[in-house]
Order: sequence, then structure tokens, then C-alpha cells
Amino acid sequence: MSNIEQSSTAFNRFQNLWSSYADLRNAAAILEWDQLVNMPPGGSEARGEQLATLNRIAHEHLVSETMADAIAQAEASEGRPDRPQTATQAALRVARREHDRARRVPADLIAEMARTTTAAYTAWEAARSEDRFTLFAPLLARLIDLARERADALGHQGERYDALLGDQEPGLRTSQLRALFAEVDRGLQPLLQSITDRPQPGRPLFHRTVPESEQLEAGRWAVTAFGFRWRDGRQDRSTHPFMTSFAPGDVRMTTRLSADDFASGFFATLHECGHALYEQGIPDAYRRTPLAQVPSLSLHESQSRLWENCVGRSLPFWKYFQPQLARCSGTFRNASAEDLWRACNRVHRSLIRVEADEVTYHLHISLRFELELALLSGDLPVSDLPEAWNDASVRYLGLRPSNDHEGVLQDVHWSGGGFAAFPSYSLGNILTGIWMEAAESELGNLDRQITEGDFRPLLQFLRHAIHSRGGWDTTEELVQRVSGGPLTPEPYLRRLRVKFNELYDL
Amino acid sequence: MSNIEQSSTAFNRFQNLWSSYADLRNAAAILEWDQLVNMPPGGSEARGEQLATLNRIAHEHLVSETMADAIAQAEASEGRPDRPQTATQAALRVARREHDRARRVPADLIAEMARTTTAAYTAWEAARSEDRFTLFAPLLARLIDLARERADALGHQGERYDALLGDQEPGLRTSQLRALFAEVDRGLQPLLQSITDRPQPGRPLFHRTVPESEQLEAGRWAVTAFGFRWRDGRQDRSTHPFMTSFAPGDVRMTTRLSADDFASGFFATLHECGHALYEQGIPDAYRRTPLAQVPSLSLHESQSRLWENCVGRSLPFWKYFQPQLARCSGTFRNASAEDLWRACNRVHRSLIRVEADEVTYHLHISLRFELELALLSGDLPVSDLPEAWNDASVRYLGLRPSNDHEGVLQDVHWSGGGFAAFPSYSLGNILTGIWMEAAESELGNLDRQITEGDFRPLLQFLRHAIHSRGGWDTTEELVQRVSGGPLTPEPYLRRLRVKFNELYDL
Repeated sequence: MSNIEQSSTAFNRFQNLWSSYADLRNAAAILEWDQLVNMPPGGSEARGEQLATLNRIAHEHLVSETMADAIAQAEASEGRPDRPQTATQAALRVARREHDRARRVPADLIAEMARTTTAAYTAWEAARSEDRFTLFAPLLARLIDLARERADALGHQGERYDALLGDQEPGLRTSQLRALFAEVDRGLQPLLQSITDRPQPGRPLFHRTVPESEQLEAGRWAVTAFGFRWRDGRQDRSTHPFMTSFAPGDVRMTTRLSADDFASGFFATLHECGHALYEQGIPDAYRRTPLAQVPSLSLHESQSRLWENCVGRSLPFWKYFQPQLARCSGTFRNASAEDLWRACNRVHRSLIRVEADEVTYHLHISLRFELELALLSGDLPVSDLPEAWNDASVRYLGLRPSNDHEGVLQDVHWSGGGFAAFPSYSLGNILTGIWMEAAESELGNLDRQITEGDFRPLLQFLRHAIHSRGGWDTTEELVQRVSGGPLTPEPYLRRLRVKFNELYDL
Repeated sequence: MSNIEQSSTAFNRFQNLWSSYADLRNAAAILEWDQLVNMPPGGSEARGEQLATLNRIAHEHLVSETMADAIAQAEASEGRPDRPQTATQAALRVARREHDRARRVPADLIAEMARTTTAAYTAWEAARSEDRFTLFAPLLARLIDLARERADALGHQGERYDALLGDQEPGLRTSQLRALFAEVDRGLQPLLQSITDRPQPGRPLFHRTVPESEQLEAGRWAVTAFGFRWRDGRQDRSTHPFMTSFAPGDVRMTTRLSADDFASGFFATLHECGHALYEQGIPDAYRRTPLAQVPSLSLHESQSRLWENCVGRSLPFWKYFQPQLARCSGTFRNASAEDLWRACNRVHRSLIRVEADEVTYHLHISLRFELELALLSGDLPVSDLPEAWNDASVRYLGLRPSNDHEGVLQDVHWSGGGFAAFPSYSLGNILTGIWMEAAESELGNLDRQITEGDFRPLLQFLRHAIHSRGGWDTTEELVQRVSGGPLTPEPYLRRLRVKFNELYDL
């Protein structure tokens, strides 16, 4: 039985199989959410076993001969054009891709990666806390070897990074990223230079002690205004904020609060809400089908950053939200909308990616992209990585880390075998420029709507243009649909220039 | 790889398969806990699908030819005596039983039962709220037919109730229950009569408004004193209190609070804690093995009722707990230990099972047992059930319901196809008598330990005698091990007589 429109018997047979696979994946996601939000410490070992079993069974289901046959039969019956014309064709394109990729990687390699990442995470934690990169180096070297093996198993045309990029960004090429990122670097460097030449604002307004209940209340007020449906989701607290979805009607976001930094928890809340709004906007008819899966990490990230940065860090938002915030918390009662807006848009060169502002963020990603490519190609031996990182920090950010803790050891990603994931964050930012330009051209005075606290037109636009498509399109196809043009960083750079010219009186 | 001691290759192969089955079952339990504790309303439909898939895959795994073969090979290798001598034999006995029972019931019948119970639950809710039994009657009749079919599929020697009883009480016969229950009825009726002849205490002490935070605090204080390990579990709130376990290190209990009845939430908390202590006491080495499963519902219920009634409703407990309660809540500051003890032990004839006291509770069960037998045998047509219920109420409880809401429609069990489940509640009470007598004879002055708030000796006794056995023994085998004698209600009746003679000055 299919949730997708009229379809053939062959498609229904495929969809039946896929439903079980989707249920297993979502069940695993529920176990993971619980692990991070509720699980008592004593449950940890058993939970690892339960997740391993669910993931193994889901994988076996996906790569089974039954599934292979069902996909092939459904393709024969529904047609398989390059660009899907129907929902069933689009669903099959996603399924084919996921099935083929899963089958290409040998079980031994998957097992070896799982073992190595477990050891590597422990080594990374130790290296980081002792500031000794050498503790992590051998495992990182092994992970790079395994990533190469995996890239070769997945298949590529010379550029291994392409294969790995496919985990997050189906269809995107490394060569495209190189060109895109170079263009963004060229746009941001002069902007950053102009800003840092200007006098900096005074004390950071948000660094005051705000009771947790008031922080939560402010965040909930904002995400409710954005349109988060509490009937179809919830918010909890966890060490690291994240969003996960088990169905369009059950979307969970978490946040963390910092006692003496209101902005940290508040913008994490807006960010996760952006992810959550996307998931809540996927049509319920796509539930358990391949179309319930979001096409790329960058697309997801573009939703979180749109609400966090393009909305949440805008002056119109603070004009609307200043009185609401004053209602939730007395702490900022005397701050004007403009004070608050300036406070959440301070730009400065810094070493830590996760603390970076909108202008410098991408430079952290370019640095990682450059080094990942060099590591994977073998041009950069792991032993030279810390020095290469520090040199690149000077080139991209104008700062040299004084130790590896604030340098090469700051991110967890590589220890989990996650190469080629960082670019999605920048791509997400780049995409926000395209979506916002399209929204403004369709909605007219978006700023006024936001100032009035009316976020419905923007959400409706995103629902219609992006969320309701689910997994239909690749990222580039969706850009084409929405903007009529190719994936370009120009709108993104334009927005930043306008915003920071105003903020810094450039 | 087995968590159970040294074992054969064949057993290890079996245990490997069983681990996946256990993981799937525990994953489903996590989804169910989340559904009742956290899930937003919008997640309901997807959750139903996810649970159906997990349960289906777990069932397929259990009844598979691979499992059948693995069990048979392991039995051949480990031996299969009537009474297991080793942990591997005990594990295989549990697995054999579960596997055989699951294979005997045809998939069509399972599906038909699932469909019918869904409709029956809705019909029962409607019948109850409109006080019209006829709305529920046809579905109840259908469920009885299906229960008969299922009993025949499971196999029995003439008494269908035996087969159904096996769901909760492996090895127990209906004929044993008849004799046990008749003896308890004969013991309780005169006690109840003597009590109701005495003057009743005044206003119910616990019916005062107590802030929820104070109620929670009091409950948490008590269960912490009992020995609940918070590292290996948690407590939440839900509409109906329940306990569930995903591993000995992850045991979850819930409670509900009533704004104007402290006792309701407090004793629910102690009750669920009793269940939880059992699960936390199952050896971690049994995790994912058949021995992690508790042998019977009555055994589980005996643990909850021991802590709720034998401990929580005892004078020694209130001597210990009165000052602790005064610390948690000012509401009962002026009540003495004896006041509190009397308040939680008021005996009166009533129509509603879940509100019944220790003396009348069993009579509600005897009533249901009698009627279930008559329904299943066909001696009692469904159309005559309400009248039969009301007549039986007079016989057992001395009261006639004025409507079906407080009569035959009060319990949810039958609407879920749950026949032969009520007796386990009474059996659990009967077992508490045996455990407490054994504990007292081993520990010496248990009353003094409880008065001093030292619950460790009692918990250690239960851990050693019962919890650490996991699924080794049938209920009767365990009674034999602990008491050296057969399953008898005498210790239970003796305890009640001593307690209520003192309370009512008989």
C-alpha cells in the first residue's frame, strides 16, 4: 500500500518493502533521541546493542535481493527518466541511489570503520584534553585510509572526495565546490577587512545571567511565532542541540542553555526550529516513502540558518521580538531592538568555528575543505596536519592557534570518519541567499511582515517551494525550480554586504 | 557470543539469534514508553506503524526456521531435562516455550485479533461513557470466540482457560487456581465481615490538596530509600502508571498524581518501584538472553505489591516515613505515624477493583475469574453478562452496581482480548505472603529494620532469592526453592489477619 498517489502494483510492492525499512530507521532515530535526552547512564551498553541490531536489520533489508528486485520491477513499470516526472519516479530515484550506495560498500569495511571510529573518538577526546595531537594521529591516518577505500568502493571518476560528498550532497561535484568556495572567499575577505578596520561595539549585551526558565520561555515564544506546531513535535534539552524527526507529525528539537550567555541557547533554539519546520512541512503522504527523506544536508542546513540568521539576526525580527523578550525576561528590558540586533551580529576574527559569526563562518569551512582534500589525496601527511592547519588559519582568518585544542582538534567530525561533511554548512548558508531573494521577490515586503511578527507568508513560501517537495529534487534541481537559475553565491554575498554595511556603517 | 557462562557452540549460535530478537523487543518497548510519556499527539499514526513493523519483524525472527533449528541444536547439545540444571538449559526452556507458542497461533488469527481489539477498545470506551453495554457486547462475543480459537491453537487438555493462562502464568492450571481462590475467598469473607461490623475511622486523612512537587518529592524519597538505582532508571509521569525495562541498567517507571489524593500517587509510585526493583535486580549477565524475562506476571506483581502493601502500608514503614514525609510536605506535619498507617488501610466494600483495599481486592478478582470461565466455556452468553456480574458482585462484595459503568464495563482488559490475566493480580498478593514469611525467617527483625529505614536487608533477600534468578524457574519452582513448600495462600491470609486484627481491634 503506497502513500504516494496512483501507482502500479510493482511500485506498491516496492513501497511495502520500503515502509518497513523506513520504520526501522525511524525506530533507530527514536532510540537515539532517547539516548541523548532521557537515557539513564546505566542504559548505555544495552542501547548500543539495540541500535546496532536495528541498524543491521535495516541495512540487510535495504541491500536485500528482495529489495533489489522490487526496485528494478518498479522502475520497469514506472519508467526511469533522468529527471523524474512523477512522485513514484522521484521516490525510485532516491531508493535506487540509497540501495546502490549501500550495496557497494563491503560489510567488512563497514565493520572496520565502526571499530576504528569508536577508538578514534576516544583518542580524539584524550588528544584534545591533553592537547597532544599525536594521540589522535595514527587513528586519523587509519580513518583516512578507510575513507579512501570507501570512496573507491562507492565509485568516482578520479576525485575520491566526490564519492564521499555524495553522503550528504547527492549530485554535487568537488570541482563545483572549489569554484563556489573561491568566489565566497573572494567576497568575504574584503568585507571582513573593512569590518575589522572599524571600531568594535562595546560589551557583549547578551552576556548576562538569565534564569533558565526565562531563556526557555523566550525561545518557545519565538519558535511558536515562527510556526512550530507543538501538536506535531516537542522541545527538550540535551548537551548538544539537535533536531530529529520520526514522521512529519513527530519532530523533536533540543536546545541547551548557557547560564551567562542568552544568545547561545536562543540562537541554537531558532536554528533547530528551522530544521524542525522543514520536517513538519514534509507532506504526510510521503511518510514511510523515500520522498520523506530530505535530499541533502545543505538543504536542511539552509532551513536552519535561514531562520537563525536571515530572520533571527535581522533588525525587523528584533523590532518585533524586543517587547516579547522583555515580557519573558526582565534582563533585557532596557535594550532597544537595535541594541539587540547589534549584539547578535558582532563580527570578529576567531579560531573556533562553532563560535563564528556570519561573516567569518565560511572561512572556517574553506580551511577544512582545503585540508580534507589534501589529506585524502595524500598531498598532506597526517603528521604535517597541525602545522598546515595553523598556517591555513593565518591565511583564512588572520590568526594562528596557540595550541591544537583551538586548532586542528576542535571538531569532532573527523574522529567519526566524517570527511566531506563540512562543506554542507557553507552550502546551507549560500542557499539561504537564494531562498531569501526568491521569498522577497514573491512576498513583497518581507521585512514589514517580520517586523509585525507575521511569519506565515515566509513559512508558506518555504512550505510551498521547498518543504512540500520532500525528496523530489536534488539540491541543484530545487535551486533551478525556485530561482530559475544555477547554484550561485551571489545573493548570499549581496545579503551579507547590505546587512554588514548597515551594521558597521561601511 | 553468549552472556551466559561457558556454553556450547550450538548454544552460542542460538544466543546470537536470540540477542537480535531481544533487541527488537526492547526497541519496541522503548517506542511504547516514549508513546506514553513523550510523544506529541501528531506522532500517533506513524508510531502505530513503527511498532507494528518492529513487532512483526520480532515475531518473524522468533518463529523462523533458523530459530527453530538453533533451539533444537542447542537443546541437543546442552541437554533438555524437565527441570533445568544449568543456565543454558533454563534459557532454552524459556526460548522453547516462547517459540512453540508463537508458532502455534496462525498469522491470520493474530491479524484478526488485532483488528477486533482495535474496534473493541473503541466500542468499550463508547459503551462505558454512554453506560450502554450493548454497544460493546457484539465485539466482546467476537473476542471470546477468537480467544477460544487461540486456546485451541495453543493446545490444552480440555480446559481452554489453561491455554490462555499460559500467557501470563506458565505451568499453572485452572484447577489449581480454583482451589487457591476458593481458599482465599473462605479466609477473607469472615475477616471482611468482622471489619465492616466495626466502627469506621473518620475523614480520609490523605484527601487533602498537596502540591505536585511535594508529592513527587515524597515518592522519590521513598523509592530511593527502597533502593531504586537512579543511575539505572528514571521516573516520569503518565496517564496510567506503569513500569517498563529495556535492560537491567535502564528501568523506567511512571506515576500519576492526583491533586486531592496523596495516597493515590504515592502508592502507585511504591507499586511501580517494586516492579522496577525486580528488573534492576536481574543479573546484567542475563541481558539479551531468555533469562532476562521474568517467568510470570504474578511473580512480577508479587514484587510490586510486596513493596506497596507489605512494606508501604505497614506501621513500621510509617514510623520511619512520617518524619520524612513531614520534611517533603507540610500538609501531613501533624499526622502521627499511626494516623498515616490507619489512613492508608481503610477497608470498605466497594464496586471498583482499582480502588479496592487489601482485604476486598481478591474478591474482585474471584468475581472476574468465575465470569471469565463461564464466558469461555459458553455457560454464560454475553447478553447475560451484566446481570451475572451484578449478581456476583452481591455474592462477593455485598453490593450491587447501579449501572454497568461501575459494573461490567469498569475494566479495559477484555476489550484488549486479555482473558485469564486478572488471576495474576491475586496470585501476586498470595505470593507476597510466601516471600515475606521467608524474609522474616531469614532476616530476623524485619519490622525493626523497616522502622529504621534500612530496606537493604529486605532488598538483598529479594535480590538473592528472586530477582537474581531471572527466568530460571517457573513460579511454583521458585516458591519451592524459597519456602521449601508448595504454592499456598496460608501465609498471605495469616498476614492479613494479623494486620487487620490490629488495625480494627478485632
